[in-house]
Amino acid sequence: MADSLRKVTIVGLGLIGGSLSRSLRASGFADELVGFDKSPEILELGVDLGVIDRFESDLDLALEGSDLVVIAVPTLAASALLESVLKKMPETAVLTDVASVKGPLAAAYETARERLEAGAEGMPRKAAPFVPGHPIAGSERSGVRASRPDLFRDHRVILTPLEDSDGNAVALVRRMWEQAGAEVVELGVDDHDAILAATSHLPHVLAYALVDALSRSDVSEDIFRFAAGGFRDFTRIASSDPVMWRDIALANREPLLVAIDSFTAHLAELRDAVDRGDAVALESTFAHAREARESFIKQNIS
Amino acid sequence: MADSLRKVTIVGLGLIGGSLSRSLRASGFADELVGFDKSPEILELGVDLGVIDRFESDLDLALEGSDLVVIAVPTLAASALLESVLKKMPETAVLTDVASVKGPLAAAYETARERLEAGAEGMPRKAAPFVPGHPIAGSERSGVRASRPDLFRDHRVILTPLEDSDGNAVALVRRMWEQAGAEVVELGVDDHDAILAATSHLPHVLAYALVDALSRSDVSEDIFRFAAGGFRDFTRIASSDPVMWRDIALANREPLLVAIDSFTAHLAELRDAVDRGDAVALESTFAHAREARESFIKQNIS
Repeated sequence: MADSLRKVTIVGLGLIGGSLSRSLRASGFADELVGFDKSPEILELGVDLGVIDRFESDLDLALEGSDLVVIAVPTLAASALLESVLKKMPETAVLTDVASVKGPLAAAYETARERLEAGAEGMPRKAAPFVPGHPIAGSERSGVRASRPDLFRDHRVILTPLEDSDGNAVALVRRMWEQAGAEVVELGVDDHDAILAATSHLPHVLAYALVDALSRSDVSEDIFRFAAGGFRDFTRIASSDPVMWRDIALANREPLLVAIDSFTAHLAELRDAVDRGDAVALESTFAHAREARESFIKQNIS
Repeated sequence: MADSLRKVTIVGLGLIGGSLSRSLRASGFADELVGFDKSPEILELGVDLGVIDRFESDLDLALEGSDLVVIAVPTLAASALLESVLKKMPETAVLTDVASVKGPLAAAYETARERLEAGAEGMPRKAAPFVPGHPIAGSERSGVRASRPDLFRDHRVILTPLEDSDGNAVALVRRMWEQAGAEVVELGVDDHDAILAATSHLPHVLAYALVDALSRSDVSEDIFRFAAGGFRDFTRIASSDPVMWRDIALANREPLLVAIDSFTAHLAELRDAVDRGDAVALESTFAHAREARESFIKQNIS
């Protein structure tokens, strides 16, 4: 594998795809960065903003001769798109993605690979290797206009190589993220989905549930009127894109249910401590949580 | 009532009492600001930092000849202290406080007033009027060293006058907070406690419960390692003082239980929507929550 690639294709030019493309262009990672998106306006904007070198409106042409293909659309769309991308891309290229949930992508790849290798649609052929990835970065803003080359700097990117993932393919995807300034770590697909359910998907569900509950209360006007600063921080993630989070909740159903149930059980214990006026249990839970959060803040870079 | 008071007494020189005292000194609200605290070191520090004019180590002397007495200790301590303060302060003065829960303070005042007026400990005498107050301001820092005169600027202060609260007394306490730059609003005691349970006490319980649950998980190291930026904001309030929040949970038991139960019911609905893969219900709940939060952010100053 040469140090500089010939062609990288970004499928989906949103905040993540656009930011990755900008950083790859800036570092000279490939001779050309080619964009594909279902919206022609976004593609033209991508060229105007200097996010991509050029675009193709046809997926076949966008993938033709590519060395590295990044599917950078939301989770459910990524699963749906994977088979057609795999079918049209060179088998010598490497495929990766940026979706927030990895299980459905890994499953979609297995199905698509089997069909391709069995010749389900034409001549049997080898499938390109797939290295699922998930950059732990984002912004309240979205879209290609919000993209910036340093979005991933000092953020973590989790790769979840599959059982049969090729070592060179993993190394290439790792190198792609490292040039963007990210710290790359590897996890199993199931571990990734369980951990993200607990640390990201559950908090989003809790924030949405809280704001929704309060807004439906009889005194919702007063409630919002008197909400203090902590409330603003606590509910910030309830301002996230509802469609994206609907899809994440659907895609990560099982691990999210496990996380919600575990949280609900803990909350019920705390509720009982409040109910029986158990000062010792309340203080020890609160103190333990504070300590855990502070040690987390110390060790975490993102 | 003269424009400038002779003597204001601050009982408890923490972040709130210290900040209030600083602002009162700066505006010349009273001829002298006298501090009382159970810790002699804090009192000396208060003078050294210019937070108070002077202190008294004896509660009787601190209250003697005072025009306005502010109990600025945490909720449970405030209830416990109220009767001795009321007994020792001039009946012509006005009593107020800054506790986060108003029900217990209102109840403690009623009991203390009845005992005083019935002569339960000596000659029957009239009780000074009490105007419960709650500044919606704070900081992750605490203590007199963190105090600053502008802590309340552009923040709301809720007064919860009692049924028999004297109009002049309410006006004086309102004037005290307005000179500190706060926006003063009035609520009933029960409404205050229900609203604060929903917007402040419940979010704290949720944040503590979440961090505690995650930290006790089998994979807690990985969980905290991969937690993203949203998690940091969402759990910021779990770094709050455990003792203070234990006391608030104990003091506001009933309204907090109502708020927890309402939230739990909403979360269970959302859980069921995830379980049955109900995309419509998820998106509509998430979108409704985002809209409610954004309209709250627009109308809220603090």
